[in-house]
Amino acid sequence: MTDNANTPISVVGLGLMGTALARAFLKAGHPTTVWNRTAAKADSLVAEGARLAPTIGDALGAVTILCLTDYSAVRELLGDAGLAGTTLVNLTSGDSAQARETAAWAEKQGARYVDGAIMAIPSAIGTAEAVILLSGPRPDFELGALGTISYLGEDPGLASLYDVAGLTMMWSVLNAWLQGTAMLKTAGVDAATYAPFARQIAAGVADWLPGYAEQIDKDSFPAEVSALETDARAMAHMVEESEALGVNAELPKLIKAMADRAIAAGHGGEQYPVLIREFERAGE
Amino acid sequence: MTDNANTPISVVGLGLMGTALARAFLKAGHPTTVWNRTAAKADSLVAEGARLAPTIGDALGAVTILCLTDYSAVRELLGDAGLAGTTLVNLTSGDSAQARETAAWAEKQGARYVDGAIMAIPSAIGTAEAVILLSGPRPDFELGALGTISYLGEDPGLASLYDVAGLTMMWSVLNAWLQGTAMLKTAGVDAATYAPFARQIAAGVADWLPGYAEQIDKDSFPAEVSALETDARAMAHMVEESEALGVNAELPKLIKAMADRAIAAGHGGEQYPVLIREFERAGE
Ligand SMILES: NC(=O)c1ccc[n+]([C@@H]2O[C@H](COP(=O)([O-])OP(=O)(O)OC[C@H]3O[C@@H](n4cnc5c(N)ncnc54)[C@H](OP(=O)(O)O)[C@@H]3O)[C@@H](O)[C@H]2O)c1
Ligand SMILES: NC(=O)c1ccc[n+]([C@@H]2O[C@H](COP(=O)([O-])OP(=O)(O)OC[C@H]3O[C@@H](n4cnc5c(N)ncnc54)[C@H](OP(=O)(O)O)[C@@H]3O)[C@@H](O)[C@H]2O)c1
Repeated sequence: MTDNANTPISVVGLGLMGTALARAFLKAGHPTTVWNRTAAKADSLVAEGARLAPTIGDALGAVTILCLTDYSAVRELLGDAGLAGTTLVNLTSGDSAQARETAAWAEKQGARYVDGAIMAIPSAIGTAEAVILLSGPRPDFELGALGTISYLGEDPGLASLYDVAGLTMMWSVLNAWLQGTAMLKTAGVDAATYAPFARQIAAGVADWLPGYAEQIDKDSFPAEVSALETDARAMAHMVEESEALGVNAELPKLIKAMADRAIAAGHGGEQYPVLIREFERAGE
Repeated sequence: MTDNANTPISVVGLGLMGTALARAFLKAGHPTTVWNRTAAKADSLVAEGARLAPTIGDALGAVTILCLTDYSAVRELLGDAGLAGTTLVNLTSGDSAQARETAAWAEKQGARYVDGAIMAIPSAIGTAEAVILLSGPRPDFELGALGTISYLGEDPGLASLYDVAGLTMMWSVLNAWLQGTAMLKTAGVDAATYAPFARQIAAGVADWLPGYAEQIDKDSFPAEVSALETDARAMAHMVEESEALGVNAELPKLIKAMADRAIAAGHGGEQYPVLIREFERAGE
């Protein structure tokens, strides 16, 4: 983590997450100003060296991290604050449309607006495990005190999109692991015995993604490894095994249904990433 | 790979996969006997040094790898062959019930029967990437010529179960990646740009599995990192974002539906692995 600890920072919103953010800036030596609607929540941070801004307008004098409940709270709070010349980094969770609208709204008032998403829990803030996604104009200040900063590009919607895509991956790995764990439990295999196997498969398949991505970008899906039709036979087997074992079969069925649709659309002789066509289309 | 290349091996079934298996044994120096219903398929292997068994009964004199279309082909072929004293390693794909039935059938006739599953395509056989799962009586012969051998335990159904669980993980990682790729494409981000991010998340989450497995084995799910209820709010956001972007939302919806059911069952304050209860239960 590199960090320019001289940059003065304001943190607006001192809930669970905002408090963790402010504490990480203080710890890294940033002159840190805080503001919260309910002022008492600033007390401990002030005791640790933060300056309490008397008004929200005063807080906006420095690079300002916003961390409120949602985007409507941000718009409500900043509505009359006067944003000309300010620099806002909005780490409040929201969707890509909200991020783009709020960026346009803030820029129209003369603010520099960076949108962000926090892929971490408050206790991880300040460690390398905390991933902070940023998008919008490239920041010329350092936020490395918070964790691992990843700048994604000019479109302010990108941080939200990567965040939600990453969460989909997280829950998908967990669900596939739970599905396998449930199957193996029927044979008396405990979760700890199965987990290293699941871990190895997940990490191994993750390594294929950059190569598979090339097929998508070229829109060309030669069956170098295996054809979708061959995969579908093993998928049928996966569904039948789940049903025979009496465990949940919804995840196996969804996997098979997506592949079956691509085969029905004429892609049975192509390779798995051709399924992007189905994922890009609103389903049944 | 360690390998005792002195063990004589027979390979029965010389389709795409059986041919690759026989070739790997030959390459590693095993005295290799082959047999196939359609004898002409043995020609190239014989030219490479294999011995053609005149009858299936003759082939069964050595440790015999079976690699046929399915389990009924195995039963049909071996029905009258006389199995007393033979050692069979059945690498034909099938489900755990078929594996257990075939093991009981072969053992009743006095054979030693090991069941297996091949997690590889033919071209990978003979490299460390080819994972061969084995279950049943622990083999006292080496099959390392084929790839990475993983012995899973006495229950002959285990190889099939691990295989299908591993496939579920494979397609789940691929599908989550495709979902994210479809979302990011709406913002003009190409697949190659997104893939390294997806890879990192998948590999990172894979590392949590051994720890999460402990919660399942203890049947205790304290919300050390985050409660299911908090997760569910982010899941709602994931579904809404997919719908707003006009991409497929079935995978996000299934993720949310599973969590919602666990919350409805009273587990909202517990941690994600409590969902094992839903995965163990046949769903709607
Ligand atoms: N906690 C996490 O694990 C986590 C992880 C990743 C992302 N996030 C995101 O971080 C953001 C904050 O989360 P949190 O956990 O800190 O929530 P929180 O503890 O509930 O705090 C919410 C904050 O928003 C303020 N607020 C709400 N409405 C307001 C308004 N109209 N005007 C001014 N201030 C308002 C609250 O002020 P008062 O104190 O006056 O009520 C409080 O400071 C959310 O978008 C959340 O999704 C959180
Ligand atoms: N290919 C792969 O990528 C792959 C990957 C993992 C697992 N597997 C599994 O490996 C097994 C074999 O696959 P493959 O790709 O080699 O299939 P294949 O090319 O279709 O070969 C099938 C083999 O089974 C034989 N056979 C079928 N019915 C028979 C019967 N009643 N009596 C005697 N022999 C019979 C065929 O003999 P004839 O030549 O006389 O027809 C042929 O040798 C399958 O269970 C498959 O699921 C394959």
